[in-house]
Amino acid sequence: MAEQDAPDSREFLYLAEGIKEASMINQRYQSMLAAKSVIRELAEYATARGREIGYENVFDFSLGNPSVEVPAEYNQSVIHRYQTMSSMDLHGYSPSLGNTQVRGIVADSLRRRFGIPYETRHIFMTSGAAGAIAHAVRAVTSPGDTVLTFAPFFPEYVPYVEGAGARLEIVPARRENFQADTDAFLQMLTPDVQAVLINTPNNPSGALWSEETLGQIAEILRQKEEEYGHDIFLISDEPYREIVFDGKKTPYPAAFYSNTLTCYSFSKSLSVPGERIGYVAVHPKATEADDLALIFGQISRGIGHNCPASTAQYGIADCIDQTSDLSVYETNMNLLYDTLIDLGFTVTRPGGSFYIFPKCLEEDAIAFCNRAKKYDLILVPSDHFGLPGYFRMAYCLDTDKVRRSLPVLRRFVETEYPGRFL
Amino acid sequence: MAEQDAPDSREFLYLAEGIKEASMINQRYQSMLAAKSVIRELAEYATARGREIGYENVFDFSLGNPSVEVPAEYNQSVIHRYQTMSSMDLHGYSPSLGNTQVRGIVADSLRRRFGIPYETRHIFMTSGAAGAIAHAVRAVTSPGDTVLTFAPFFPEYVPYVEGAGARLEIVPARRENFQADTDAFLQMLTPDVQAVLINTPNNPSGALWSEETLGQIAEILRQKEEEYGHDIFLISDEPYREIVFDGKKTPYPAAFYSNTLTCYSFSKSLSVPGERIGYVAVHPKATEADDLALIFGQISRGIGHNCPASTAQYGIADCIDQTSDLSVYETNMNLLYDTLIDLGFTVTRPGGSFYIFPKCLEEDAIAFCNRAKKYDLILVPSDHFGLPGYFRMAYCLDTDKVRRSLPVLRRFVETEYPGRFL
Repeated sequence: MAEQDAPDSREFLYLAEGIKEASMINQRYQSMLAAKSVIRELAEYATARGREIGYENVFDFSLGNPSVEVPAEYNQSVIHRYQTMSSMDLHGYSPSLGNTQVRGIVADSLRRRFGIPYETRHIFMTSGAAGAIAHAVRAVTSPGDTVLTFAPFFPEYVPYVEGAGARLEIVPARRENFQADTDAFLQMLTPDVQAVLINTPNNPSGALWSEETLGQIAEILRQKEEEYGHDIFLISDEPYREIVFDGKKTPYPAAFYSNTLTCYSFSKSLSVPGERIGYVAVHPKATEADDLALIFGQISRGIGHNCPASTAQYGIADCIDQTSDLSVYETNMNLLYDTLIDLGFTVTRPGGSFYIFPKCLEEDAIAFCNRAKKYDLILVPSDHFGLPGYFRMAYCLDTDKVRRSLPVLRRFVETEYPGRFL
Repeated sequence: MAEQDAPDSREFLYLAEGIKEASMINQRYQSMLAAKSVIRELAEYATARGREIGYENVFDFSLGNPSVEVPAEYNQSVIHRYQTMSSMDLHGYSPSLGNTQVRGIVADSLRRRFGIPYETRHIFMTSGAAGAIAHAVRAVTSPGDTVLTFAPFFPEYVPYVEGAGARLEIVPARRENFQADTDAFLQMLTPDVQAVLINTPNNPSGALWSEETLGQIAEILRQKEEEYGHDIFLISDEPYREIVFDGKKTPYPAAFYSNTLTCYSFSKSLSVPGERIGYVAVHPKATEADDLALIFGQISRGIGHNCPASTAQYGIADCIDQTSDLSVYETNMNLLYDTLIDLGFTVTRPGGSFYIFPKCLEEDAIAFCNRAKKYDLILVPSDHFGLPGYFRMAYCLDTDKVRRSLPVLRRFVETEYPGRFL
């Protein structure tokens, strides 16, 4: 079945043709549909090209789809549950905030790992980080409010925030290392900002925010909360928390600021993105900490989504502190980073995630990435990440394929940008 | 783990205490939270009472949680997939509209069963019927539009419709048989109505709408579409489609009206409510039929929900035309119906679902159901279903328990309403 799971080319046909006028269908979604997803278009191109020349010959760095195996224990434990639990216990309704014991297991793990006294009532189970962020934004903003995030940023933040009726504003990137530009942040943190959305390790830059950066962000937030007399929530998107390099650990944003809603997905740490499983953890000292999960439950009613699948909840609970073997991402990162540096790219060495974000060799990132396509290198131009002139490579690929891509990358650069080597 | 999955009493504690004022937390959800869920409160009462006297002694007719086993083939096929599929194929991202092959299998099944030429592109996989309805309403309404439904109705329609920014208006019940009051419908179908939400077999009444009823509804819709010059979509909520009695089949609403969005859940037919798996099927002749699934995909981005779990999609695809052994619901219905009639209740014999909806023996349904609690009979008053003075019994219970409830029901009626037997 899986080989037919590549994006349905029909979808892209419709996207490419644009949508006919239809007065009765909600116009807002029509226009979203008309705004093509660059990443999915590239993935579709890669799939089509793969059919022509063999997918092994397409160096597809477009999609952030985990490439390593789920831990064997995950599958074993789910199979065991299928074999031993009663139908009603295994497949019955979850409570709307998530299976109570699973929520407790998540709280215990966070408490143990980060020293913050989470309890069951602070955890709300979601459909991955997407569901987590959508709930968090709806809970702490009202239509018309502003949410700040930092460039470069994951483009799906736009629909999450606009879906809640709020506006997303972008703090410009600090290009030298992709830490936060705290001066710009301080200036943009006006009274209408109710929430700040951060993502470390970062998609697309791979930047791991330092304790210093997080401390400064927290200090500014506390200062402005006091000045404006209202809460400002930090919504921390952490699907890459466990993918960090050079033996480091990800500084935990909620440890720096108590009005933090931690949004997590197990998609990357356990390689189960199809299971759509994650959570929001409300810092126990956040404003209304004891009620926020209940409010998330109310939000779920309105969007018709009542909990992730029960079996996925059991699966992650049984493997709560495990991860897939994530070392391949560091191996791949090093191969790409060294080659990119050698080829003369301006690039920040990623601290985590499975992305790298070099500066293009010409101003127009789309033109740059189009040239790369001729070499069957699928690179994502940065325009949609809120910072033109860069490109993203997602290196969740077999290391062998990454290795084979390196001479192609070299040929691309040497052929298309020979001036770089004068 | 499962025995602790009853609704977290803490949640209900918070509900009961009401929510503190919190200026920064979205007020809309605060007020939703303050409006307690009567059904969940009753379920919580039943759980608490069960702890006191043994759950086997509480006749809990409050929750519509399927009580029969998942088909053995479902578990076997999922286990087989866990044992044989690659991690990436099993747990990888689904395309955002659902696994393409699963969508095709759903389309094939509907085509085969109902003779309507659905194709893959007409199917969008959702988190159960809740997700299906939420997407359907958002797609065909704009904020401020009106959606009509028929009393008695499932109270969660209110958040689904209001969550989309539309207003839900209720066509009064036709009490003699709970078919549609088509005269009232014709009158209420004003130009601001963009969608009509129906549910047959019905929660809470158990009514199965006849071909005649559906034909009349369709005729009125076509007439008003022409008169007003705009589409009016029929959103058909069909989680109980396969639970029908007396050897009947559920007339398929989309067969009567082509602007139909069929919202389905496998929760009841396969007894897998915890898996959160369903779909919207767009009638191939609906307006914009080829684009609506794509629009649902855009809506998903905004609510942060990208598809049901991949393993649940595989599970239902492998069992597409199977059901659990649903015969217990008919057995239970007959036992209750005969006893209720014998006790002098005014009650319409259900044609399907696992609900029965008798008239109370006093005007105030809440008072009636409170009296029943003294006998450890947990009945749901009808006020939230849009028709005061009735009560709902969900008979998705072991038949033995239903049998044991009958003398208790008799004792309740004879003791509390002795005048009925003069």
